[in-house]
Amino acid sequence: MTQQIDTLFTNALVLTMDGKLNQYDPGAVAVKGDVILAVGPEAEIKQKYTANETIDCGGKVLMPGLVNAHTHVPMTLLRGLADDLRLDVWLMGYMLPVEREFVSPDFVRLGTQLACAEQIRSGVTTFNDMYYFESHIAQATADAGLRAVCGQTVMKYPAPDAPAFEDSLAMAREFIKNWKDHPLIVPAVAPHAPYSCTPEILRAAADLAQEFDVPLHIHISETAFEVETMRNENNMPVVPYVKKQGLLEAKIIAAHCVHIDAGEMWTLQHVNAGVAHNPSSNLKLASGFAPVQKMLEAGLNVGIGTDGPASNNDLDMFEEVRLASFVAKASSNDPTVVPAATALLMATRMGAQALHIGHLTGSVEAGKRADLIIVDTSPVHNSPRFRRDPNNAYAQLVYASRSTDVSDVMVNGKWLMRNHQLLTLNEEELLVEARAMAKKIDTFLIEREQSVLSKLIALGGSMEQESFEVQVKVKITEPDLVVQEMKRPEIEITAFKHYRQYDNYFSFDDPSQGRLRFREDDLINAKGEAENVRTRLTLLGQKREGKIGEDVLLSRSRFLAPAAHTLRFYREYFKPKEEISITKDRQRWHIRYKETEFFVNLDHMEEPKMGYFLEIKSRTWSRKDAERKAVMASELLSLLGAASAETVAQDYIEFIGS
Amino acid sequence: MTQQIDTLFTNALVLTMDGKLNQYDPGAVAVKGDVILAVGPEAEIKQKYTANETIDCGGKVLMPGLVNAHTHVPMTLLRGLADDLRLDVWLMGYMLPVEREFVSPDFVRLGTQLACAEQIRSGVTTFNDMYYFESHIAQATADAGLRAVCGQTVMKYPAPDAPAFEDSLAMAREFIKNWKDHPLIVPAVAPHAPYSCTPEILRAAADLAQEFDVPLHIHISETAFEVETMRNENNMPVVPYVKKQGLLEAKIIAAHCVHIDAGEMWTLQHVNAGVAHNPSSNLKLASGFAPVQKMLEAGLNVGIGTDGPASNNDLDMFEEVRLASFVAKASSNDPTVVPAATALLMATRMGAQALHIGHLTGSVEAGKRADLIIVDTSPVHNSPRFRRDPNNAYAQLVYASRSTDVSDVMVNGKWLMRNHQLLTLNEEELLVEARAMAKKIDTFLIEREQSVLSKLIALGGSMEQESFEVQVKVKITEPDLVVQEMKRPEIEITAFKHYRQYDNYFSFDDPSQGRLRFREDDLINAKGEAENVRTRLTLLGQKREGKIGEDVLLSRSRFLAPAAHTLRFYREYFKPKEEISITKDRQRWHIRYKETEFFVNLDHMEEPKMGYFLEIKSRTWSRKDAERKAVMASELLSLLGAASAETVAQDYIEFIGS
Repeated sequence: MTQQIDTLFTNALVLTMDGKLNQYDPGAVAVKGDVILAVGPEAEIKQKYTANETIDCGGKVLMPGLVNAHTHVPMTLLRGLADDLRLDVWLMGYMLPVEREFVSPDFVRLGTQLACAEQIRSGVTTFNDMYYFESHIAQATADAGLRAVCGQTVMKYPAPDAPAFEDSLAMAREFIKNWKDHPLIVPAVAPHAPYSCTPEILRAAADLAQEFDVPLHIHISETAFEVETMRNENNMPVVPYVKKQGLLEAKIIAAHCVHIDAGEMWTLQHVNAGVAHNPSSNLKLASGFAPVQKMLEAGLNVGIGTDGPASNNDLDMFEEVRLASFVAKASSNDPTVVPAATALLMATRMGAQALHIGHLTGSVEAGKRADLIIVDTSPVHNSPRFRRDPNNAYAQLVYASRSTDVSDVMVNGKWLMRNHQLLTLNEEELLVEARAMAKKIDTFLIEREQSVLSKLIALGGSMEQESFEVQVKVKITEPDLVVQEMKRPEIEITAFKHYRQYDNYFSFDDPSQGRLRFREDDLINAKGEAENVRTRLTLLGQKREGKIGEDVLLSRSRFLAPAAHTLRFYREYFKPKEEISITKDRQRWHIRYKETEFFVNLDHMEEPKMGYFLEIKSRTWSRKDAERKAVMASELLSLLGAASAETVAQDYIEFIGS
Repeated sequence: MTQQIDTLFTNALVLTMDGKLNQYDPGAVAVKGDVILAVGPEAEIKQKYTANETIDCGGKVLMPGLVNAHTHVPMTLLRGLADDLRLDVWLMGYMLPVEREFVSPDFVRLGTQLACAEQIRSGVTTFNDMYYFESHIAQATADAGLRAVCGQTVMKYPAPDAPAFEDSLAMAREFIKNWKDHPLIVPAVAPHAPYSCTPEILRAAADLAQEFDVPLHIHISETAFEVETMRNENNMPVVPYVKKQGLLEAKIIAAHCVHIDAGEMWTLQHVNAGVAHNPSSNLKLASGFAPVQKMLEAGLNVGIGTDGPASNNDLDMFEEVRLASFVAKASSNDPTVVPAATALLMATRMGAQALHIGHLTGSVEAGKRADLIIVDTSPVHNSPRFRRDPNNAYAQLVYASRSTDVSDVMVNGKWLMRNHQLLTLNEEELLVEARAMAKKIDTFLIEREQSVLSKLIALGGSMEQESFEVQVKVKITEPDLVVQEMKRPEIEITAFKHYRQYDNYFSFDDPSQGRLRFREDDLINAKGEAENVRTRLTLLGQKREGKIGEDVLLSRSRFLAPAAHTLRFYREYFKPKEEISITKDRQRWHIRYKETEFFVNLDHMEEPKMGYFLEIKSRTWSRKDAERKAVMASELLSLLGAASAETVAQDYIEFIGS
């Protein structure tokens, strides 16, 4: 008596990826409903079952579908948008502005469908996602028939799907409730990263994950900078910090872990944390070399992920598996570490364990869900084939197979691809939609990139300042005389400050764009030490109202922004045509003269060396007031012994930069 | 009036990779015979030419074919044969023994054809090879229609195609003469590496290359070990060494350059040397991270190569280009270095320059040979597509394109692939032949791997020694007494040596394989210092002739080999089931007693701690002689005060290992 089943796979090299790494050649697999009933030598399995459908695998490899342990699937729509940039420029200059503008339920649905099509073609049957509008991602994934852990993002900043983190947390709760028992989707909560969440958010996310017994997905120690900042601010590395916030009480999936030490590995292992290693992303963004071999030796479940397609730029797990092996070897100076079988294990059974769904998928074993792929290892680029050692089969898959060698994919007992044809998604339609979306994003960015001002605004936090000023500037040779004359009784000093100012001016091909100034102001105390450092970014327009006598009435539209990033960031983001540095020592008096307020700046131009300048400035709101102040400024010049000094009608940058 | 041409490519995104990185979209390219006549905007080109054949590229990318700057094409037949091994085990344990056995004109012809099929499919139009029987490789390549620099290997060891280097040099000369003016093949001489060639070989190769003005292809500074050895032996790094041998007077192509310093880069740049960077191979064999960014900054022409498919394990230049960028970013901790355009340039124009054939190929420019490929950048895994920045196109190709996206390939004006169909090679036939070859190699290795003896012989240099010995061994407690009694007049001491012996015994699943002993003998001088160190490998059989009284007549077949490699090498190569270490201090007297020669060993077993043993041994050739010596050995025991000591009938390893 044979048992009736749905699908019988025969004539395959079955790589089970089970605990003993059993291989059957020729092997067979019996599937009924969504479950694998049996796996073993073909002759044995064939005797036991009668199938509705028998699939002759023609000697190809039959194995568990690949597990993509960390990604942001809707970012397929941002693939290749901005590359070869440093993480901050890439993220804050491009990704976040575009996401703020475009991410919507429709966007994530389309991006998810595109990503599912790509992943099915690449033999991925399970992925672990973190993004916005996660319920829409879950729905699109379920419709495409893939298995996924879907993590609703929570963070301290406003997100495309929530104005505040309380809203995100409420969404996450609702999402988890609604999807808790879905056959394909495991809902999860995804506090973005320790640095982008408050301790309060981390604790709330951990509580939520525990309440519903779902995974918690988070970025951990992706960059050395993150770890350094954490140590500076909290006197501990990242893992102890998140432990302190209760995060390790949840079923945690820690993405990246590039910069964790042996103690942190032990802590993570102790709580059965999953780690998602992302070799392409770590290489492309120069985040570093994750200590994969050490994590494996510590007994951690290390899965392999593609990360989002905007930093990879694809969802090709065959590439990632190969790189996981390559990078571990090269970075540990030992070609024997992470051999092919281990790399493939990380992308299958161990990956599923890292996602806390090892009981469902990751190996071809009786009782697990039928998540299976067929891979052709006979194309020209993978021939010939040796069989001396069982490891030859893993080496073929890891070192020479391409994702395009996957011919058939089944998830949860349902066919998603047969003979390279997708069955649940219409690729042509998706490509048309994706092209339309890309065109909109292109238009948005082309417009923005044409204008320095738009790029500045895209960073957020900038504000316009219309500044009308009377200004007179003269070149002097006796600065000590000025300091002495400041003590005259006609001049009431209301404040005095001493600065060193480091200015960097960016200029652009099109002069009408104006100049962008990055200024570092070091406030110098009486001891001559820098007491306080402030950085500001100012876009200086070219417009000028007019002159009054020898003095100048300036009217400039200025955009100011707090310079939250480094000079290097702005250099790489704005890509100036030219850059000029000016360093000066400035003594700045705020004075009252004839009931009127003025600023007096005594500047020593140190770099380039140009000697001393005296500036007298006052804000104004009318031409009449301006004329009055211009006369007073001339009087002040005389009082300060600079009546006959050479007047300079330009900003420093103008006569240096020309 | 329009000019009549052979082929007009229209409706393409043309990436010329010329000096200005011009792009045309829609662009067109005009080809007549083997030459590119014109490239430019479609409308402009279309007006000027009438074509026999017009190819509508349908918006795909049209670009120069890729240049694989370093490979060993016939090694496709060894792809996946042995992986995850250290370089020495991989090379000396597997590659060299198999090459000695199998490499022939037929082998290289088949391997080359397979490699050409794979490379055409991957968009490679030019490759730079180094192997044996290079004229056969050149012929197979020319027949397949690819362009190649073919380097005949020369080295100091016997090669599969030549018993001595003089033969290789003569072959190289003949080969270069015969192929000097071929339209596709550039013949070259390939001294394998500085460490595998004598200075005499290097000088002869350089002279030959100069005489015929052909390239000289060599491995340079692939591993840190190579550089360390060079510094120890010649007090200089590798590049100055080869310069001293005159190598830099030739058109050199230096493969790898993983471990070269700034001075070496300058030296190479000064002589216009080409460098071939092999990221996959360097990662997989853990050779290190080549200083690509620094070499580019030094002005070197750095091409990208796959290396041989036995250490990669494929010929996928799309993967290599991506890795060249990824690895440069990660190893320099800067994601902006080697951006996509630079990586692609290295694989095209700069790669051709590195091979000293930049005048022929590497870019789409009027006057160059028509080496062109069409790449589809619209598949799901590479959609959508942005056009804001010209770099978007390079990023698409470098970060997300797969070699399978290449649809059409033309070399020297001749079609090699149209719409994914190969036109010059029969893949099915090649696969059948390759499978047959793989089966033979598998059989050879399976047989060898079953026997420790075969594996030992495969390493070369081993020799059998039939050793018949009379041996008596006793456990003693008063070693000082033995030393004292050795002064008795009956005993004539002819030699005395003091050793420390470090033995490592490997045992195997099947005891009939015998035990393999790795022995390090440190000769200790009068001051107690190790004066000379010798390592030997001995395979000890299990067979034993019989006993004589209390003493033992041993007959063992022993295979001895000089242990040229490290203990670690043998451990990884032989993969023993168990390993036991024994350390002993041995005082060894060579004596004459009653006109007969004996060895007396006084052993102090230090690890494991087992006390003192006295051994008396003598070689013998007959049973009668053996019986006589056994009696004398007993007498000696008495003379040395050990008459009543406990006799030990086993080797040390036997009672420790059991």
